[in-house]
Amino acid sequence: MARTVRGVLGVGIVLSLWTVLAAADDFRPFQPLPAQPPVPASNPQSAAKIALGAQLFFDARLSPAGTVACLTCHNVLAGGEDSRARSVTVGGGSTSRNAPTLWNVGFYTAYFRDGRATSLEHAVEEQLLSAEAMAMASPEALVERVSAILGYREQFAQVFGSKNAIGLANIAKALAAYLRTLVTQDSAFDQYLRGHEQALSPQAKRGFEVYVDSGCASCHFWVNLAGPVPGLAFAMGEGFYELFPNYLGSAFDARYQLTQDVGRVTISGDETDKHMWRVTGLRNVAITAPYFHNGSVTTLAEAVRVMAKTQLNKDFTDEQIADVVAFLQSLTGRFPEPRVPRLPPSEDGSVFAKP
Amino acid sequence: MARTVRGVLGVGIVLSLWTVLAAADDFRPFQPLPAQPPVPASNPQSAAKIALGAQLFFDARLSPAGTVACLTCHNVLAGGEDSRARSVTVGGGSTSRNAPTLWNVGFYTAYFRDGRATSLEHAVEEQLLSAEAMAMASPEALVERVSAILGYREQFAQVFGSKNAIGLANIAKALAAYLRTLVTQDSAFDQYLRGHEQALSPQAKRGFEVYVDSGCASCHFWVNLAGPVPGLAFAMGEGFYELFPNYLGSAFDARYQLTQDVGRVTISGDETDKHMWRVTGLRNVAITAPYFHNGSVTTLAEAVRVMAKTQLNKDFTDEQIADVVAFLQSLTGRFPEPRVPRLPPSEDGSVFAKP
Repeated sequence: MARTVRGVLGVGIVLSLWTVLAAADDFRPFQPLPAQPPVPASNPQSAAKIALGAQLFFDARLSPAGTVACLTCHNVLAGGEDSRARSVTVGGGSTSRNAPTLWNVGFYTAYFRDGRATSLEHAVEEQLLSAEAMAMASPEALVERVSAILGYREQFAQVFGSKNAIGLANIAKALAAYLRTLVTQDSAFDQYLRGHEQALSPQAKRGFEVYVDSGCASCHFWVNLAGPVPGLAFAMGEGFYELFPNYLGSAFDARYQLTQDVGRVTISGDETDKHMWRVTGLRNVAITAPYFHNGSVTTLAEAVRVMAKTQLNKDFTDEQIADVVAFLQSLTGRFPEPRVPRLPPSEDGSVFAKP
Repeated sequence: MARTVRGVLGVGIVLSLWTVLAAADDFRPFQPLPAQPPVPASNPQSAAKIALGAQLFFDARLSPAGTVACLTCHNVLAGGEDSRARSVTVGGGSTSRNAPTLWNVGFYTAYFRDGRATSLEHAVEEQLLSAEAMAMASPEALVERVSAILGYREQFAQVFGSKNAIGLANIAKALAAYLRTLVTQDSAFDQYLRGHEQALSPQAKRGFEVYVDSGCASCHFWVNLAGPVPGLAFAMGEGFYELFPNYLGSAFDARYQLTQDVGRVTISGDETDKHMWRVTGLRNVAITAPYFHNGSVTTLAEAVRVMAKTQLNKDFTDEQIADVVAFLQSLTGRFPEPRVPRLPPSEDGSVFAKP
């Protein structure tokens, strides 16, 4: 079981990680996003593996009826999500939670909003088989589907070095390798952190002050503004969580149904994990509406208002909110040009069953 | 009403277009695919328009719930279709016919398997609103959706030169401009036609002989192997049709349900159009299984066997079939590297309704 670390806001947590870290001489709570997230030794990056992962990511044949690709809910051609409160499943239903962006996903220490996956590879494996995502019936069904495509058979053998290279683990490894390339650098905030004072507008600078002074930064700090990254104080798999809502009883609880989903307790069974959520990264947050685990809030300004009240018990003024929004907008990075490889064609015959 | 021209195989048609054309000195029934299909004067190509069309093509926000993009059923990252017998609609149902490839679509003189659209622009307009395709409720709903995205407002104004540029017609124009760039040149057959004798294998050459001598070529000729292209004997909108099955009564009629769908008569109301279908282009046919209007045949070899029997009343030997398949495989062209544009992000708030 991975060690769980809660943010300063967690009930019963008296020590702020931020405070502890700040005691160190070299603590820099805000840092430009590195060009690449940490890469596990068990899944080194290679150009061929990344290209294969990109193909799999864009390939709807990885869902039972060929109707859904990873891309469908995580549109990396735009903000990396699907602009929906909840996603539509292959069966036409609704997912239970909002699809998060996959941009900069490699900087997390734990995966999913409840932190139930301790590596990106495990998270991908789960999504390939989850009825809420790719919905393949079994690892065997997935392997059979991918193996039916000559181009994939050749590529997997080349990347993983054996004739029987197509398996759930390797499919997930290729996808994870691709996901670790989804990095948005050079936001206005990054430029500011590198010393370009003018990169932030006066309003964004005021917003940054509010953000730090009022306590937003206690959880939303470091490179991905989601707390620790792997290798920096935390090991991979150690989630960084906050209680949400931290202050119960505001009008927002009901208005946005904030307490219906009880969060991490569902996974851990630990009552102190009730309403605990992995801290969400804030990079590109301005283009990933709607917000929160249930996608109930449609504007960034309202999301800031809700967070101030529920997490810090503060009523931000409209001006403070506008300032913080200006700061958050400065977190939108430079998106690399999409490089989408061609997909290997299906061989003679269809990979799908007859109508 | 567009003039309808039937192929040599149509019942009651005594004159083969091929025979008529062959009398002309300059008739070259097979020609390499040009780099670009005909472009209507009303919709000239431009780099900005093509880029906008590509974005719209990849953008699932053009469907009601954001679940389906043009790309979903016409996967231009691969063969330009969806490898399915029939496609899945936004409602989870089945389309009535097989989705054709969009590669080289600009070389047709009429659109859809029943030729009901007389221009690519009209075909796109129909698909945006069709319940079987993008399923937008009305032109107004579509315009509202696209207009909700700042990037599109700016791009449409730039491409079409007015502030109120977002309308069904212009959306279709941009998409059509993009579709006209989907051209696959330099197939082995194209190289052969340009004088590289060795580009075709001996088997493919034997298959080409069978293809011409037995009569396949009477309908499947010219650059797209689908009969006349706009400006060459035909004007845009004049469909080139064949009766399918031409010889009724083979075992294939029942096995593949070939007569259930009555084809063009549904659109024209003309009884002589019963079981008439626009001749389908054969470029890249080897990678666009399954086959026919209902996607009932899963292999190319079986498709050749069926066509020989139903259209020419011939029982091809296994060797003849293998030879023709080898020829048809030589029609797979060189696919340009995908150039997938980034999509403009949704603005603050979601373009979709709440859950």
